[in-house]
Amino acid sequence: MAEVATSEYVLSTEPQLKEFVHQVLEKVGVDAGEAQTVAEVLVAADLRGIESHGVARLQSYYVSRIRAGKLNAKPKYEIVRETETSVLYDADNGLGHPVGKMAMEKVLEKAGKHGAAFGAVRNSNHYGIAGYYAMLALPHDMIGLASTNSVRYGAPTFGKDIMLGTNPLAYAIPTDKEPAFVLDFATTTVPRGKLEVYQRKEKPLNPGWAIDAEGHPTLAAADALKGALLPLGGFGVDNGGHKGFGLGLLVDILCGVLSGGSFGNSLPLPSSGPQPGAISHWFGAFRVDGFRDVADFKRDMDKELRDFKASAKVPGQDRIYVAGEIEFEKTAYNREHGVPVHHKVWDGLQKLGAELGIPLTKDLSKHER
Amino acid sequence: MAEVATSEYVLSTEPQLKEFVHQVLEKVGVDAGEAQTVAEVLVAADLRGIESHGVARLQSYYVSRIRAGKLNAKPKYEIVRETETSVLYDADNGLGHPVGKMAMEKVLEKAGKHGAAFGAVRNSNHYGIAGYYAMLALPHDMIGLASTNSVRYGAPTFGKDIMLGTNPLAYAIPTDKEPAFVLDFATTTVPRGKLEVYQRKEKPLNPGWAIDAEGHPTLAAADALKGALLPLGGFGVDNGGHKGFGLGLLVDILCGVLSGGSFGNSLPLPSSGPQPGAISHWFGAFRVDGFRDVADFKRDMDKELRDFKASAKVPGQDRIYVAGEIEFEKTAYNREHGVPVHHKVWDGLQKLGAELGIPLTKDLSKHER
Repeated sequence: MAEVATSEYVLSTEPQLKEFVHQVLEKVGVDAGEAQTVAEVLVAADLRGIESHGVARLQSYYVSRIRAGKLNAKPKYEIVRETETSVLYDADNGLGHPVGKMAMEKVLEKAGKHGAAFGAVRNSNHYGIAGYYAMLALPHDMIGLASTNSVRYGAPTFGKDIMLGTNPLAYAIPTDKEPAFVLDFATTTVPRGKLEVYQRKEKPLNPGWAIDAEGHPTLAAADALKGALLPLGGFGVDNGGHKGFGLGLLVDILCGVLSGGSFGNSLPLPSSGPQPGAISHWFGAFRVDGFRDVADFKRDMDKELRDFKASAKVPGQDRIYVAGEIEFEKTAYNREHGVPVHHKVWDGLQKLGAELGIPLTKDLSKHER
Repeated sequence: MAEVATSEYVLSTEPQLKEFVHQVLEKVGVDAGEAQTVAEVLVAADLRGIESHGVARLQSYYVSRIRAGKLNAKPKYEIVRETETSVLYDADNGLGHPVGKMAMEKVLEKAGKHGAAFGAVRNSNHYGIAGYYAMLALPHDMIGLASTNSVRYGAPTFGKDIMLGTNPLAYAIPTDKEPAFVLDFATTTVPRGKLEVYQRKEKPLNPGWAIDAEGHPTLAAADALKGALLPLGGFGVDNGGHKGFGLGLLVDILCGVLSGGSFGNSLPLPSSGPQPGAISHWFGAFRVDGFRDVADFKRDMDKELRDFKASAKVPGQDRIYVAGEIEFEKTAYNREHGVPVHHKVWDGLQKLGAELGIPLTKDLSKHER
């Protein structure tokens, strides 16, 4: 469990944060049901310890765009193509979370009937953590896939132009007693936020994280922030950077090209500000029982994950984590002890709430740490 | 194009190599049609410049096991579970290539009818390059997926036990005039063969490739060969090693656990010698026209790939390659100029041919380099 310094964080609760997000979004014009879905997805990120994708983004990613008329608060989410095992939505430049959940639920319905299905959404916006959508497959005893392209931050292998988002891939696979296998990762080595943290702390970056504006590998955060992130595997091909680049491009194809949305260099750069409906998502699901009886599969999944966790550790490490395990433990911990919200984020939420007449008080927190 | 030193290589041709592989396998008891499929897959690897997975393995991976009674030359490949969008084969400890092709063709047939399908094969053996099977989707205007687990070489993040194969993932996506996007990569940073090459050349490894037997990162090839490969992203989590580990484990789950085959620490270690039917494969396909008209999709695929290739290069590099492009160019080059076979591999093939009464002569080569 990552330690969180008391003074830097305010402890809230899952219901308080969900209610607040819900009320704020309704106030700026989002339908109640859709506001609720956004609240669910954002707070799921905070529960899982992925602060960068949680309530911290409420103002900067969503409310500010709605208020500026850059994001449609009352979109008409529409199916534009559909077969027995595929569905394509147009999100009408609305919030990504409701249409993302809608698309994944449609995929699950189709896969429930036919065994396997895929979905895509175009003309959308940032949808939070990809893992949330993949995990919707778990209660159905299916394997879930989810992905999204994003604003561009990364360079291709041997390239210096910013061409690719952090383009996450997520897979969720059911288990019996073990936490589900949930792999959800950006296809760049690190997120851009990490460069900002290192700049603040005046620490050198690791090799393989970023290049400067001229395309040289750099360990200077300030130079990297003017350059580009590197794909998983780092600079060039020697440590497999071409594999990470391939995965990032794969995600852009599955989301952007397959949906008929924006892709490649038609995606926004951070410097170009919000562009309506530039983001696309991709989803998939298939039934475990198309291959094995579910109980047998889940039993073997538990064995697989336990064997990895029980295997010998390198010196200085006492645990091997499998994908999704840390987030599962954090969720349980944060539900019991309170959800930490960075004090700067909390202050921002309070300010936003005050503007909209939606109070946010620390008194609602069940616990203080 | 990678330069190949003349003296180290013999130039053969695609038909000569295919015919030789075919005849050798028939001679040791493999049915003609199945021998032909193995020849196709192995020679496809040599054409694509992936020598490690080509005819070099004919004796060591396939013929030696058949002769030792470790691999079934006349397997009964059998469907053990099937739905409209899924199929599971038992390979009866036969060669992996024929059942791999059979399974992918069944997946394509089902996806052709229903839009999407998945397949798995258990109780199999090494099936060559995963990309071959994914690429079978291309003429059908489908997106193809293929994967396989393998003998164990790699350690999990923070682990020192050898727990994971090189576990490749392959994706093939159709294009119009550009070479298809074919991403086919091992989920370890480098293959074990690379450590052997560095040992021979007495060169230090890169950080992030391997650990020694005690679990310490090492740059010494000899120590690494007694230790384990690291996942894509390298040692620990700082450069994303947990992402590569997650992908490797994902492949083991999709192949081994989903098929009811061997997985995790029930897979063979290199030191334990061949174990019958330990390997499992996984396949998937879905139709592009479930989302967009195929012509529109292919036009945009060309644009996507061309935009990446045309983007600015880092100093000292003059090309950006997208996945599959190098292999496409090598295939065209090797078809025209001859297929290079390392002289040691060639000598081994000649020796094998002599034993079985199947001559292999340089006179059949159309070209010398």
